[in-house]
Amino acid sequence: MKTFMDEDFLLETKTARKLYSAVKNEPIYDFHCHLSPAQIAQNINMNDLADAWLYGDHYKWRMMRAMGIEEKYITGKADNYDKFIAWARTTENLIGNPLYHWTHLELQRYFDINEPLTEKSAPIIWDMANTLLQKPELSVKKIFEKFKIYAVGTTDDPIDSLEHHLAISTGTAPIGKINTKVIPSFRPDRALNIDSNGFSVYIHRLSKVSGTTIKFTDDIITALEKRLDFFVSMGCRSADHCLEYAPYTIDSGGSIEKTFRKAMAGKRITQQEADSYKTKMLILLSNLYAQRGIVMQLHLSVIRNVNMKILSQAGDNAGIDAVNDYNLSKNLAALMGHMELPKTILYSLNPKDYYPLATIMGGFQGDGIEGKMQLGPAWWFCDHRDGMEEQLRILANLGMLPVFVGMLTDSRSFLSYPRHEYFRRIMCNLIGKWVENGEYPCDMKKLEKIVHDISFGNAKRYFG
Amino acid sequence: MKTFMDEDFLLETKTARKLYSAVKNEPIYDFHCHLSPAQIAQNINMNDLADAWLYGDHYKWRMMRAMGIEEKYITGKADNYDKFIAWARTTENLIGNPLYHWTHLELQRYFDINEPLTEKSAPIIWDMANTLLQKPELSVKKIFEKFKIYAVGTTDDPIDSLEHHLAISTGTAPIGKINTKVIPSFRPDRALNIDSNGFSVYIHRLSKVSGTTIKFTDDIITALEKRLDFFVSMGCRSADHCLEYAPYTIDSGGSIEKTFRKAMAGKRITQQEADSYKTKMLILLSNLYAQRGIVMQLHLSVIRNVNMKILSQAGDNAGIDAVNDYNLSKNLAALMGHMELPKTILYSLNPKDYYPLATIMGGFQGDGIEGKMQLGPAWWFCDHRDGMEEQLRILANLGMLPVFVGMLTDSRSFLSYPRHEYFRRIMCNLIGKWVENGEYPCDMKKLEKIVHDISFGNAKRYFG
Amino acid sequence: MKTFMDEDFLLETKTARKLYSAVKNEPIYDFHCHLSPAQIAQNINMNDLADAWLYGDHYKWRMMRAMGIEEKYITGKADNYDKFIAWARTTENLIGNPLYHWTHLELQRYFDINEPLTEKSAPIIWDMANTLLQKPELSVKKIFEKFKIYAVGTTDDPIDSLEHHLAISTGTAPIGKINTKVIPSFRPDRALNIDSNGFSVYIHRLSKVSGTTIKFTDDIITALEKRLDFFVSMGCRSADHCLEYAPYTIDSGGSIEKTFRKAMAGKRITQQEADSYKTKMLILLSNLYAQRGIVMQLHLSVIRNVNMKILSQAGDNAGIDAVNDYNLSKNLAALMGHMELPKTILYSLNPKDYYPLATIMGGFQGDGIEGKMQLGPAWWFCDHRDGMEEQLRILANLGMLPVFVGMLTDSRSFLSYPRHEYFRRIMCNLIGKWVENGEYPCDMKKLEKIVHDISFGNAKRYFG
Repeated sequence: MKTFMDEDFLLETKTARKLYSAVKNEPIYDFHCHLSPAQIAQNINMNDLADAWLYGDHYKWRMMRAMGIEEKYITGKADNYDKFIAWARTTENLIGNPLYHWTHLELQRYFDINEPLTEKSAPIIWDMANTLLQKPELSVKKIFEKFKIYAVGTTDDPIDSLEHHLAISTGTAPIGKINTKVIPSFRPDRALNIDSNGFSVYIHRLSKVSGTTIKFTDDIITALEKRLDFFVSMGCRSADHCLEYAPYTIDSGGSIEKTFRKAMAGKRITQQEADSYKTKMLILLSNLYAQRGIVMQLHLSVIRNVNMKILSQAGDNAGIDAVNDYNLSKNLAALMGHMELPKTILYSLNPKDYYPLATIMGGFQGDGIEGKMQLGPAWWFCDHRDGMEEQLRILANLGMLPVFVGMLTDSRSFLSYPRHEYFRRIMCNLIGKWVENGEYPCDMKKLEKIVHDISFGNAKRYFG
Repeated sequence: MKTFMDEDFLLETKTARKLYSAVKNEPIYDFHCHLSPAQIAQNINMNDLADAWLYGDHYKWRMMRAMGIEEKYITGKADNYDKFIAWARTTENLIGNPLYHWTHLELQRYFDINEPLTEKSAPIIWDMANTLLQKPELSVKKIFEKFKIYAVGTTDDPIDSLEHHLAISTGTAPIGKINTKVIPSFRPDRALNIDSNGFSVYIHRLSKVSGTTIKFTDDIITALEKRLDFFVSMGCRSADHCLEYAPYTIDSGGSIEKTFRKAMAGKRITQQEADSYKTKMLILLSNLYAQRGIVMQLHLSVIRNVNMKILSQAGDNAGIDAVNDYNLSKNLAALMGHMELPKTILYSLNPKDYYPLATIMGGFQGDGIEGKMQLGPAWWFCDHRDGMEEQLRILANLGMLPVFVGMLTDSRSFLSYPRHEYFRRIMCNLIGKWVENGEYPCDMKKLEKIVHDISFGNAKRYFG
Repeated sequence: MKTFMDEDFLLETKTARKLYSAVKNEPIYDFHCHLSPAQIAQNINMNDLADAWLYGDHYKWRMMRAMGIEEKYITGKADNYDKFIAWARTTENLIGNPLYHWTHLELQRYFDINEPLTEKSAPIIWDMANTLLQKPELSVKKIFEKFKIYAVGTTDDPIDSLEHHLAISTGTAPIGKINTKVIPSFRPDRALNIDSNGFSVYIHRLSKVSGTTIKFTDDIITALEKRLDFFVSMGCRSADHCLEYAPYTIDSGGSIEKTFRKAMAGKRITQQEADSYKTKMLILLSNLYAQRGIVMQLHLSVIRNVNMKILSQAGDNAGIDAVNDYNLSKNLAALMGHMELPKTILYSLNPKDYYPLATIMGGFQGDGIEGKMQLGPAWWFCDHRDGMEEQLRILANLGMLPVFVGMLTDSRSFLSYPRHEYFRRIMCNLIGKWVENGEYPCDMKKLEKIVHDISFGNAKRYFG
C-alpha cells in the first residue's frame, strides 16, 4: 500500500516518478483564471481558512449541500469557524473527489500540514493554518514566488479600466515589483448575450467607455475593437467566450439589426434571433483576434443557474451550474468554417464532446503553427483525476499530445496552484505507464522534453 | 492467476477484501424491483431452472437471440429442458457479460454449484438445481431470510388494490409472518402516457378505483392523490416514472385540457401536446411526493419495443428495448426548476447522461438532507462491472459517494439477490484501489462506515 | 519495464500471450477497405516510403498539420524525401497515438526495421525501406501471401465495371493467380445523396450503365438492383452506406417523386426532402440485400470537409472530416423497424453511440443467425488502443463477444495489415485479463476458439 498522498502521490511507476521529478519545479503559466486583479495589486493576505477556502468556491458549496449542511454554513451568515468545521465534516466524506486531493495538497504545500482534514482534526488545523495565513510568507507576492507563477491570465470585461493591471505592471501597486505577468483576458460575453437582462445597459456602458456611438451592430464591433486594442496594449494575449452551446444561424444583416433594436428596446429576443446575432459577432471577433495574433478560448456546454431559489439567495456562481448536452458538431464546424481562425482552444464541460471537438479542430490545424488548435484541458466539472486522464488519452489518440498547452486553474483562489502539480502528476503517470508498457521508447531526453513542454513550455510559446 | 469466481472474486487488493468482508453479511434494501407481490404472498417455489431463469428474463432472451437460438427456445413453446440447454450453450459464450457472472453467482449462492455452466455440464446442473428448487429452503420466505432482505420495493400501478401487500404485511398470506418489508411503489406511467393506446380506458379505471369523476386534468391529480395516500398508508416510500426523455413544454391550461379531451376521444396526440400534459402532471405529482416525504425515481432515456415482429409475438418486455439518446440537460433542469422537489433519484439508461444528471442534481442538493438528490445506480443495460465502476467514479468525482443509496436489482426473479453482492464487490474493489494507491487515508473505521452506508445504511435512512 | 514494441507488445499477462500465439498466424478477412482494384490487378510495388505512407493517408496529414508542418510537405509539391523527413519529425511526437504503433509495426513486419523512427533515424530508414519496397517480396501479391490475406472487400460504386475484379478473379491480370479473394462491395452513396452536387449527373450515368430509363425513384431501385445482381455475380458479399446521421422521415410517394424531379432539375433540396428520399431508398435497398443474403454495413456519425480552404486545395479525403454528434436512437430504431433486415453491421464514428447502437441492434437479433446484427469494430478516429478496448468491452457487456466479426483496416494502403495484429493483441490482452482476474474459467480450448473466431472465423462465416 502506498502512503497517503506522499511525494509519490499518483506516480505508479519508476518512469512516472522520474518524469515528474523533471517538471515539479517548472514555472506555472496559469492562462485562464478568475483571480481578482485588485487583490493581487493589494498583495492581500487571507484572514483564515474559511476566508481562503469558502468564499466564492462554488465547488465546495455543492459538496456541502450534498452533505446536508444547512445553507447558513455555506453562503449564509454563520461565523467562519463554524463554516470551516462544516467543511471539514464534508471533506472527510469526499473520497474519490478532486476536492479531497486539492484540499490536502493545499494543506501540505502552503501550510506543511500532512494530517488529513476531518471534523476531529479541524480545530488544530484551523489554528495552525490561520497563523500562517497572516504571515508575509502567504501574501500574494510570496505565493507567486513560491509557486514560480510565470503568468496569470485574469478574466476581464472589455469595459474594465484595467487599472489594477496597469498598477501591477508598472510596479506602482502595493505589491510592488513582481516577476509574475498579470495578463488581462478579453471576455466580451455581455456584449454577445443579447438575450440576457442588462444587455442594453451594457451596450450603453460600452459605448461610453469606448467613445463610440453605437447604432448598429457593426458599431459594437468597432467599440470592442477599440477596447481589444487597449487590452492588447496592456499585454492581453487571449480572448475568452462562454457559450451554452455553439450557435450557428446565418441571417440577413437587416434582420440582425432589427433584433439588435428590439433588444435595445428591452423586448424579448427569440433563441434564433440571438443565435443570428451571436454568430455574426463571433465571426467578426474571431477575425480581430486572428489579426492581432491572440488566442481565442471557447468554453462550451454550460447550463447556468438551474436552481432559482439558490440563485435568488446567493446570486451567480453559487454552485448551481451544470453540464449541458446540446449537439455541437454541425454548428461548431460551420462557425469555425466562417472564421478567419485565430489560435483557438476549445473547451467543453461535457466529455461526450471531446471526440467531436478534437476531430473538428483537427480539420483546422495547420498554417505552420504547432498545435494551432487546442483541445482545452479537463475543465471545471471535468477537472479531476479520471477527467484529466480521459482528456489526455483522447487528445493523444486523436491529435498530438506533445504540443498541448496544458493545465489552468480556472480558480478564484490564491491557494489553487497545486492543481498544476496534480495535473503534472497525472500526466507523468500516464506517459510513464505507456513507456513502462513498451508503447513508446524509453528515451528520457525526449520524454523529459515532452513533459516540460506540456507543463510550461508550450503555454509560454503559444500565448507568446 | 486468480481462481474462477472464488471468495475473492473482483477483489484485487487486500484492502478491497477487508472492506468486502465488512459488508458481505449486511442486509439488502432492494428499493426498486419487479417482483410479483402475488408470488411473494403465495411463498412460491420455482419448478425448475428454466422456470426460474428463462420466464420473463429479457436480458437472457437477447443473448440467446444473438447466439442464433431459434425463438421457440426463447419465448416459444419448446419444453423447459430444451430451453435450458439452449441457455447453457449461450451462457458459455457470455465472456465479459454480466449475465455470465450473475448466472454463476446464482449457481454458487443458491445451489452450491461451483461448476461453470456449459452445454456439457448443463444436464447435471439441471438435475441438481431442480431438486433443490423444490425444497422449502428455496421458497420465497427462505430466500428472503437467507439473503437478509430487509425490504423490497415492488412496482405497482396506482389502480392496484395492493391486496397482496396487505396480506403480506398482516401476516395473513400463505407466506405467513416475514421480516422483509414488501413495500409498494407508486408508478403512474399509464396516467401520464396520454399518447399511448389505452389511455382513455385507463383514466376510466382510475376514475372508478379512486371514486373521482374525471373531467379535467386536475381531476386526474385528485384521483392520483387519493391513490397515493392509500399507497402511503400501505407503506409506500417512493414513486417511479419511466420516461423516454425529459419532457418540458409549458402550455396554457386551456390547451392542455383540449389535449386531454382529444386523448379521451381517442384522437391522435402530437408529441408537443403530450409533452405539455406530461410536464404539468410531473410537476404536480412531484409536489405531492414532496409533501408526503416520499422519494421520486425518474428512469430516463429508454426507447421501447424497437422490433414490431417480436413485439407482436411476445408482447412488452421481450428484450427489444434500447438506449435512447435525446438531449436532456435543458429540459430536465427546467422541469426540476419548476418542481417543489422531493428526494429524487435520477437514472439514465445512457451513460452519456451521467455528467448532465450528476451536475444538474448537484444544483438541487440541500435543505439539510444528506444526498437529497441521487444519481441512480448503473441500471439495466448499464448494470455490469464496467458500468457500475463508471457510475461510481463519476458520482465520486462530481458529487459525494458516501451518501449514495447504492444498488437495486430491478429484477423479476427471486434468484437475483447476488447482484447486490456483485455491486458490493465492485464498490469495495474501487474504494480499496484508491486507498492502496494513497488517494485516501487507510482509516478502516471510516472506510467501513462508508461501505456499510452504501451497501445498506443510506437506503434505509433515505427511504425512511 | 517492457521492451519497446517487442513480441509481447500489449500482452500484459501470460494468458494474453498464449491466446495471441494461437491467432498470430490466422488468415485475415479484411472485409472493408479502400484498396485500389487496379493496383492489385497490376501487382504494383510502391516506389518509396513517402509513396507508401503519405499519398492519400489523411490520418497522417492531420498529425503533420498539428505538428506545424507546412502544407507543401503534406499535400503539396515538396519532394518525397523532404515529405518523409517531415513525417519522421511528426512521428517521434506521436506518443499515445495509434499512428505511432502502426508506423512501427509496419517498419518491423514489412522491413524488419526495429529502430524507432525519428528525424535522426529517418535517412537510414528511408534508404533501407526503399530498397526493399522495390523488390518482388513487397509486391501486392507477396504482401497478400505474407499476411495470409484470405479476402479483401474493396469499396465500389454501383456503376463501376468491376473490370479489375474480373481480371483478378479469372487470373488474367498481371498479378496472375492469387489465393486472396478480391471482393467488390456495393456502395451506392451517390445514388442516395440527392442533396449533393453531381446527383443528377450520377443518375444519368447509372441509367446508362444499367440500361434502365430512370423517370421515378422506383426506377433508381430497379437500376441499382440490376447492378447489385451484377456485383453479386462478381462475388459481392456486402453493401456499404456512409451516413452523416440516421435519416428517418416518412413522406408520401408523391412528395418523394417531386423531390426527385427537383433534384434532377438542379434545384436545392431541403434536409427533410433529402431525408424522405434517403429513408425510402435505404428501406428498399435493405430488402434487396436481405433477399440476396448479403451484409449491409452502415457507417454513421461523420461530418465531412469542415475546412473549405483545405478542401479547395486538396479535395475530398484530405484529413478534414470529423465526428458528428446527432441523436440517433429514435431514427435508427424506426428505420431498422421498417426494413426487411439483412445481416447488418452498425459502425459509428462517435463512441457515445455505442450504447444506443449495441442495444438497438440487440432488439433485431435472431432468425437463428449467430450475431446477425453486429456492432462494427472501432473505426477511423476510434481505431486506437483505447477505442478498440472500449468497443470490445461495450459489446461484451451489452451483447455477445464471441460472435463478433472483428477488425478491418478501412485503409487505402497495402502496408496496413499489421492493424489486424494490433487488434488481435488488444483483444487477446483484454480476454487474458478477464481470465487472469478469475472472471472467466481458464479453459484454453474454449478461449482459443473464441479468439480464433473473432480474428477470422466469424468474418469468414458471416460474409459466407
